[in-house]
Amino acid sequence: MDVEKSLIHSLLRTASRAATMGNMQLYSVVETRTEAGKAALAPLHFNQPMVMGAPVVLTFVADFRRFTRWCDLSNADAGYDNLLSFSNAMTDTLLFCQNFCTLAEEAGLGTCFLGTTIYNPKGIIAALNLPMLTFPVATITVGWPDEDPAQPDRLDIESLIHEETYDDADDEAIRRIYAFKESLEENKKFVEINRKENLAQVFTDCRYTRKDNEAMSKGLLEALHLQGFM
Amino acid sequence: MDVEKSLIHSLLRTASRAATMGNMQLYSVVETRTEAGKAALAPLHFNQPMVMGAPVVLTFVADFRRFTRWCDLSNADAGYDNLLSFSNAMTDTLLFCQNFCTLAEEAGLGTCFLGTTIYNPKGIIAALNLPMLTFPVATITVGWPDEDPAQPDRLDIESLIHEETYDDADDEAIRRIYAFKESLEENKKFVEINRKENLAQVFTDCRYTRKDNEAMSKGLLEALHLQGFM
Repeated sequence: MDVEKSLIHSLLRTASRAATMGNMQLYSVVETRTEAGKAALAPLHFNQPMVMGAPVVLTFVADFRRFTRWCDLSNADAGYDNLLSFSNAMTDTLLFCQNFCTLAEEAGLGTCFLGTTIYNPKGIIAALNLPMLTFPVATITVGWPDEDPAQPDRLDIESLIHEETYDDADDEAIRRIYAFKESLEENKKFVEINRKENLAQVFTDCRYTRKDNEAMSKGLLEALHLQGFM
Repeated sequence: MDVEKSLIHSLLRTASRAATMGNMQLYSVVETRTEAGKAALAPLHFNQPMVMGAPVVLTFVADFRRFTRWCDLSNADAGYDNLLSFSNAMTDTLLFCQNFCTLAEEAGLGTCFLGTTIYNPKGIIAALNLPMLTFPVATITVGWPDEDPAQPDRLDIESLIHEETYDDADDEAIRRIYAFKESLEENKKFVEINRKENLAQVFTDCRYTRKDNEAMSKGLLEALHLQGFM
């Protein structure tokens, strides 16, 4: 079932109330609804089925271009082609994005956050025709949900909170923090299927490997250069 | 008036329902309540008065250390000392942070987002004793509000949304996007006080200058190296 454009835009409008660096609103959103548009994005997100399956795909783009162009037109020397400016724009964009997700779920929509957006930024930059001083940082697929899945596990919040300074947990505490996650049947199954000794090895050897991370870090850095942020 | 620790932790617990890369929850929060702790942070945030004035200061920290230590204890080769991993952790942290802000305001609290956190990361790293594979990305001051300020202006949402691909606005459209902001009395006053030709120059010459941005970009990159993410 379609999701009306006016609803998406109304939610984005409210989401734009999120905190933003100096009220510069350093973000844009590319709204993909056509089959051709989704087909161009899908392989860049490793063909995760929600890209083709959802009525709306939103790519949240860190954007210092619009502001810089205004400065250029105003005889003002815009010095935003650097890493700090990218970080500011990425921050603005993610706060706006999370606000949108909260509002969308409150409106009864379902959302899926695609973490793959920064895995192959050059591909997405090409597919969406993103110019200098813009950079894709998050992708959200949006639709009316047809299921109500159980909430996944989370770590005990107390293990993530540090009083006054960072409390570097001892080995026993680290083991305790992840013990519940290791005990879950679904995770035991992943260990078995992948023939690993334990759950941590499923992460390091199968899901998020050093080799992939290092290759994608290289691509990320190249894309930051390409877009004028380094 | 104090904000109870149990309330803050309960809000953080709910906030941790935000999307997270592979359910790794790549973040920590340092909760500063002592005068000494706030006094150490205040100059790093340019002595903005809310640091000393708010009962609670929360520093949201991108954290791949806890997960990496679990991997190390599990005989798993954790390859998370790179830029992609930092970006994943920064993303997780900001989604969690924005969720916290929404929940805090819903509970009647007031929050202020300090964008200065990444301006001097090395100082904050030292003040909070942040170890390798952690990095401060956002700071939120929290308290019971004693005023109800008017909402600041925002750009027309339609000017931030692009259909299918990035629509690089023409010069006239760029001028139109920022015209309302330029027309505001408070902004006209900034132009006058700073003896500038227009509002864009207030941003580029006074608030966010090329010189500062480039110096802080250098510091940011050094801090990423220092913390093991480059």
